[in-house]
Amino acid sequence: MSASEQAGSKPAEITKDGSFKRQVNRFTTPFGDGPGELPVEAGRYRLLWSAACPWAHRSVIVRRVLGLEEAIGLGTVSPMRPRLPRVDWEFSLDPDGVDPALGIRYVSEIYLKTDPDYAGRPTVPVVVDMRKREVANNDYFKLTNYFETVWAPFHKPQAPNLYPEALRESIDALNEVIFHDINNGVYKCGFAHSQEAYDAAYDTLFARLDELEQRLSTSRFLHGDFITDSDVRLYTTLARFDAAYYTGFRTNRNLLREFEHLWGYARDLYQTPGFGDTTDFDAIKRHYHLSITIATDKQEVNILPKGPDLAVWDTPHGRQRLSGREAKFLVRE
Amino acid sequence: MSASEQAGSKPAEITKDGSFKRQVNRFTTPFGDGPGELPVEAGRYRLLWSAACPWAHRSVIVRRVLGLEEAIGLGTVSPMRPRLPRVDWEFSLDPDGVDPALGIRYVSEIYLKTDPDYAGRPTVPVVVDMRKREVANNDYFKLTNYFETVWAPFHKPQAPNLYPEALRESIDALNEVIFHDINNGVYKCGFAHSQEAYDAAYDTLFARLDELEQRLSTSRFLHGDFITDSDVRLYTTLARFDAAYYTGFRTNRNLLREFEHLWGYARDLYQTPGFGDTTDFDAIKRHYHLSITIATDKQEVNILPKGPDLAVWDTPHGRQRLSGREAKFLVRE
Repeated sequence: MSASEQAGSKPAEITKDGSFKRQVNRFTTPFGDGPGELPVEAGRYRLLWSAACPWAHRSVIVRRVLGLEEAIGLGTVSPMRPRLPRVDWEFSLDPDGVDPALGIRYVSEIYLKTDPDYAGRPTVPVVVDMRKREVANNDYFKLTNYFETVWAPFHKPQAPNLYPEALRESIDALNEVIFHDINNGVYKCGFAHSQEAYDAAYDTLFARLDELEQRLSTSRFLHGDFITDSDVRLYTTLARFDAAYYTGFRTNRNLLREFEHLWGYARDLYQTPGFGDTTDFDAIKRHYHLSITIATDKQEVNILPKGPDLAVWDTPHGRQRLSGREAKFLVRE
Repeated sequence: MSASEQAGSKPAEITKDGSFKRQVNRFTTPFGDGPGELPVEAGRYRLLWSAACPWAHRSVIVRRVLGLEEAIGLGTVSPMRPRLPRVDWEFSLDPDGVDPALGIRYVSEIYLKTDPDYAGRPTVPVVVDMRKREVANNDYFKLTNYFETVWAPFHKPQAPNLYPEALRESIDALNEVIFHDINNGVYKCGFAHSQEAYDAAYDTLFARLDELEQRLSTSRFLHGDFITDSDVRLYTTLARFDAAYYTGFRTNRNLLREFEHLWGYARDLYQTPGFGDTTDFDAIKRHYHLSITIATDKQEVNILPKGPDLAVWDTPHGRQRLSGREAKFLVRE
């Protein structure tokens, strides 16, 4: 899922007051062993993502951190969206432009095969049931939590515990805030169709970032010494902040790298396996600056900004002092 | 003069390779007492400017620093350009939308009255001869030098010497570089119609800024301890860098405020009478983000970015240590 809209027509997710209101997920059946739930089976599902998309990125980070790569397949769409009547995601990075496992060219194909009446944007992340060859789940909000809990039987040995029971209430509460004010907050800035809607989203975004800046001045990660699901969610927005949102979405009070603690924290995560190695700045920049989005659909001259310098992500962050230890993950018991 | 173009048509100042090539000035008769030169007379001329435009801003800074305000009148056009067949500058800030001295609504009127065949963009700064009610001079490159030299009889007492004879060769040489690579360099980035043209302009721009950053690490101003014409020229681009060019023109390797020495230097100038008090960040932001330009002509949703925080321009710069004195101006003998 990401910066996109029906090309040419009035955007469906813009309200009367000019605010961006993200569409609701259509496929939300949970994974589990209860009746009507999606069975947890290794080798049965394929996760479709774009490296540009922060909502998909979070599920790919968690998949890698937990070692679910053998259990759940991965298909990758291009950050550049095709100009079709419906804005879509395309497998143009694959040979012949087709996903090798699904044999489809566009993500919309699997949505429409599953529900011929599907009228929303075809979004990533989407988990496809390869046995039925249908969409199983596109609930980006809960997907990482499924990976962290009911998918535990397939985690790698000594996998980190990203969602410890003792912290779940705090994690869930913070995740709500991060979602509305930060993850989706940048989109509310970038897709606003009125000055008022933009101004409100901007104020909320930076007020929240200021709070987290304060929180991270004394805590290595959001919930203490170890990385949790909340950190994954905050990270995917921070990783796109200077390269895309600051310019493209007008979130320009200050750059991420101008926050002392958020910037150290973001690099601490980036330099952790599963984070930096799934962060594709080139895809991010091309998507937000060159691909069709609500923000840029009308733009005729598309030129990729050369900046910012992204090598700074590899500079020392010095945040070990806050936790007193090298280890960043709480290993699952 | 500024970010503008014939609305809707193929931009006239874009070359085949996608580079921006600024139009040549049409009215370049020098001021002086030689035959055919424009006579230097107090009360005879009116300077038209927009607070948004860096080329006009430089002449207004010099006019104020030298105390030419009584001698040369000033008319101010809006930073928001009208959508006419020809992109123009408009006196919409004045009562009834008309310049009180000239009685015109658009800057194009005085250009066409002077030359009915004038086909270029009507630009500011432009000096109007109020006796003939015609354009006298629109040579933004040389205008400050005329104010600094042949207009000396009308300078205020103890006016600074912005163009000392001993430094003229150095000032002229540096002004050429500043013009091509920085003042116009940001426009070459912002108006480029090809990735290659943009990339080349970006590299040149930041290479020059890096050189000047080095130069200003040991020198309070570009030519030593005192402000000169070169500083005025560099300042007008720096003042627009974070608020406009970084986002709007994709000059996003780093912000001005991330250069240690250029940022201190820019604030040192900003905090000098004639500089900050003629710098209208609101006009600058509205022009570059909301008004029609080559870069934004096609954009349907125009929203003004809230950032960046411009109060930082008033923070201490600590650059007195480089010159060992408070005074910034070499007073004219």
